[in-house]
Amino acid sequence: MHNFFFPKSIAVIGATANPRKFGNAVTINILKNKNLESELFLVTQKSTEILGLKCYKSILEVPKDVDLAIILVPAKAVDGVIDQCIEKQVKRIIIVTAGFGEINQEGKKAEKRIAEKCAKVGIRVMGPNCVGIQNLDIGLNASFIQAAPPGIISMISQSGSFGCASFYAMERENLGCSKFANIGNKVDISFVEVLEFFREDPNSRIICIYMETIEDGREFLKSLKFIVPIKPVIVLKGGRTSSGMKAASSHTGSIATNYRMLKTSIKQAGAMLCENASDFITALKTFSFLPVPKGEKIGVLTNSGGSSVLFSDKAEEFNLKLAEFSDTLKERISPHLISLVKIENPLDMIGVAGEEQYYEITKAMLEDSEIDIVVPCLVVPPFLEMKSDEHYRGIIKAWNETGRLKPIIPLIFFGEDFEDLKKFAKKEKAPIFYTPYEAAYAIKMLVERLKLKN
Amino acid sequence: MHNFFFPKSIAVIGATANPRKFGNAVTINILKNKNLESELFLVTQKSTEILGLKCYKSILEVPKDVDLAIILVPAKAVDGVIDQCIEKQVKRIIIVTAGFGEINQEGKKAEKRIAEKCAKVGIRVMGPNCVGIQNLDIGLNASFIQAAPPGIISMISQSGSFGCASFYAMERENLGCSKFANIGNKVDISFVEVLEFFREDPNSRIICIYMETIEDGREFLKSLKFIVPIKPVIVLKGGRTSSGMKAASSHTGSIATNYRMLKTSIKQAGAMLCENASDFITALKTFSFLPVPKGEKIGVLTNSGGSSVLFSDKAEEFNLKLAEFSDTLKERISPHLISLVKIENPLDMIGVAGEEQYYEITKAMLEDSEIDIVVPCLVVPPFLEMKSDEHYRGIIKAWNETGRLKPIIPLIFFGEDFEDLKKFAKKEKAPIFYTPYEAAYAIKMLVERLKLKN
Repeated sequence: MHNFFFPKSIAVIGATANPRKFGNAVTINILKNKNLESELFLVTQKSTEILGLKCYKSILEVPKDVDLAIILVPAKAVDGVIDQCIEKQVKRIIIVTAGFGEINQEGKKAEKRIAEKCAKVGIRVMGPNCVGIQNLDIGLNASFIQAAPPGIISMISQSGSFGCASFYAMERENLGCSKFANIGNKVDISFVEVLEFFREDPNSRIICIYMETIEDGREFLKSLKFIVPIKPVIVLKGGRTSSGMKAASSHTGSIATNYRMLKTSIKQAGAMLCENASDFITALKTFSFLPVPKGEKIGVLTNSGGSSVLFSDKAEEFNLKLAEFSDTLKERISPHLISLVKIENPLDMIGVAGEEQYYEITKAMLEDSEIDIVVPCLVVPPFLEMKSDEHYRGIIKAWNETGRLKPIIPLIFFGEDFEDLKKFAKKEKAPIFYTPYEAAYAIKMLVERLKLKN
Repeated sequence: MHNFFFPKSIAVIGATANPRKFGNAVTINILKNKNLESELFLVTQKSTEILGLKCYKSILEVPKDVDLAIILVPAKAVDGVIDQCIEKQVKRIIIVTAGFGEINQEGKKAEKRIAEKCAKVGIRVMGPNCVGIQNLDIGLNASFIQAAPPGIISMISQSGSFGCASFYAMERENLGCSKFANIGNKVDISFVEVLEFFREDPNSRIICIYMETIEDGREFLKSLKFIVPIKPVIVLKGGRTSSGMKAASSHTGSIATNYRMLKTSIKQAGAMLCENASDFITALKTFSFLPVPKGEKIGVLTNSGGSSVLFSDKAEEFNLKLAEFSDTLKERISPHLISLVKIENPLDMIGVAGEEQYYEITKAMLEDSEIDIVVPCLVVPPFLEMKSDEHYRGIIKAWNETGRLKPIIPLIFFGEDFEDLKKFAKKEKAPIFYTPYEAAYAIKMLVERLKLKN
């Protein structure tokens, strides 16, 4: 996989100056990074120069060795281009072109023929019907979608547009990617190869997978079992139902997999299996920002009875455990609370609680040996001249002062539109969770990971 | 309830010039609307004038009749103030003050005493331990939280902060409220009274309820059954689990209710019961923007295989039905599609599909007699010079041209941060759904409502 993610030289075959074509998008995306060390060669019969770069009529004319050929010519021309790539002895090929196994049997045969041809000479192939790959560590966007924000997540996606949508969500949540591979119809490279590469890659600290179909299930699960103790792996499966499977088979041309069996196996392997796209992003956020706790006991503080009630419900629905406050903790926190407050867990400090209370109580809980996870719930108060980010500042101050050793789950109920809050979170590299469900789901993920480690 | 929502005169008892007190917040909020027709009287012993308004030492000094007294004095002073309100013959009382049944048995007794005293002379009481009420139709915010955006939803919430958080979400989703009542410890006014009022109120077109505990369950269900055929009622119950119930009992001082029984009854009554706060907002969005369909058959078009796969999964998990495309429809749409596209439902038009395709296909489906609900799925394309709002413009154009007779569910996968899209949606009074789950949930709500009507 190294030559896919760290190519010294790339040839885009089917490059074009027409901005309404994917061959142009890939070229532009690669060239966006002025400091990219990979050398780029453009291949097309229609132009002699694109964006100041010389064009070659065929890959055979390229004067240097090519590590990675990215093919974007029309489906019927792919076969010929592949022959030239073989003759040129390129190391790796990505076939972006669609119109193969996902449309009909003929396409399936064609892609199989190509795979066999390449296998014979040891060229590995990604695709067809994919958007390409990205290695954000070296600023390489060899795909026709936007570059993911850089970070520590590495993603394998069977769907390119799922990657694209995820990147929008990651941007919003201040998450980022190390590497991204869209394996498309996976005529050769499939989940396992990429997964094994990510396992050894130190910058891939969290792995996530969007999967629709899998052929080499046994290999995949073996690989998963081996990687899960080292790094969290988050999986979303599309095609869980018969309607979804039908849609998936027309999407990537593969026969869908029995979800129930796969589900059990993936869970047994210790990966985190999400049931929808929002949970998938929540899981990525959780592992991007938070340490795995040492135990399961949750302490909750809030200015909003309603949100702690809803959080407690979800926590119990997820089999999570609320801590009993120790006498030591009660004594420590009581001076910071007004007399109306009942000292119990969840600790409802009512609407008057401000930055000071959030700081003191969060810190006390973080330093308490009977509490492993702290959930400061908040509805941003629209009254008493409170600043919309003051409580969160108090929470993060306490977290920073305690060395971020325990996970905190700042639940700011429907607080998505407070720009100062989000700016502060970005600066501090700290998460915000927006609903009681999301907060509880984050803890569920952390506790699953804890149990795996124990 | 009329005197609560349309008071000719209001007295704020416990008004203050101190911006760090709730008595100030309520006063400011009422005065924000310069055109409010209700007359306002401030009662406090500490000031002679606040914000240019004369203050009275006691409500007995107020020179006119008082429809609504809002009490914010400390808990121990409430009893005396109530006696004065009785003497003054005010019509209605809201006790905002906390520190009653939610903190201990003594508080429970105190609030009961107050309720009995008022009942004897026919004064209805809301609260204690609440944020107040709002009637956005007349611009009245008689609460210490921010005014909800104006609209067609009327909300009864047992938690004030839940109301507050919901308003943030409504603002973001371009939803709005007609009326809002936070009934708090509900020592007198409870769900039923407000519900009955909303039933008769023409501006309350959608009713929603955040409930933690209920005493008069039978009355409530009777009332619910009567209102549901007229208007959709959306319910979120906090305190569904024993942890949640424990938190709820300390929050509003009531004994929590067996959820399983209540759940069955609420569903039998035909109300929409949500299991979390996001679903609650999705339901409000659905009924705010979309008509109830005539049938259940869904047509899906997309530029993203992945999102239509995930949508199909959720649709099946919710027992929803995808339509079979008729030959007429196939013939009508095929000229607008490139040859790579397989004509089936979901219709994956792949990444090249732009505004024109979305307009034509959405319109064809809206006009097709075999399709009742249209789901245009979209991942905003970051390529081919496409505008981020062009597809959505095509969708809405088609919807407008067909008179908005059928519901459309525009699913723009993780598209929350496209400002031009959101601006256009706001202008057009049209919804956007952001995940496959949310889109499917919206349809589930619509189909439940359809089945109720049949």
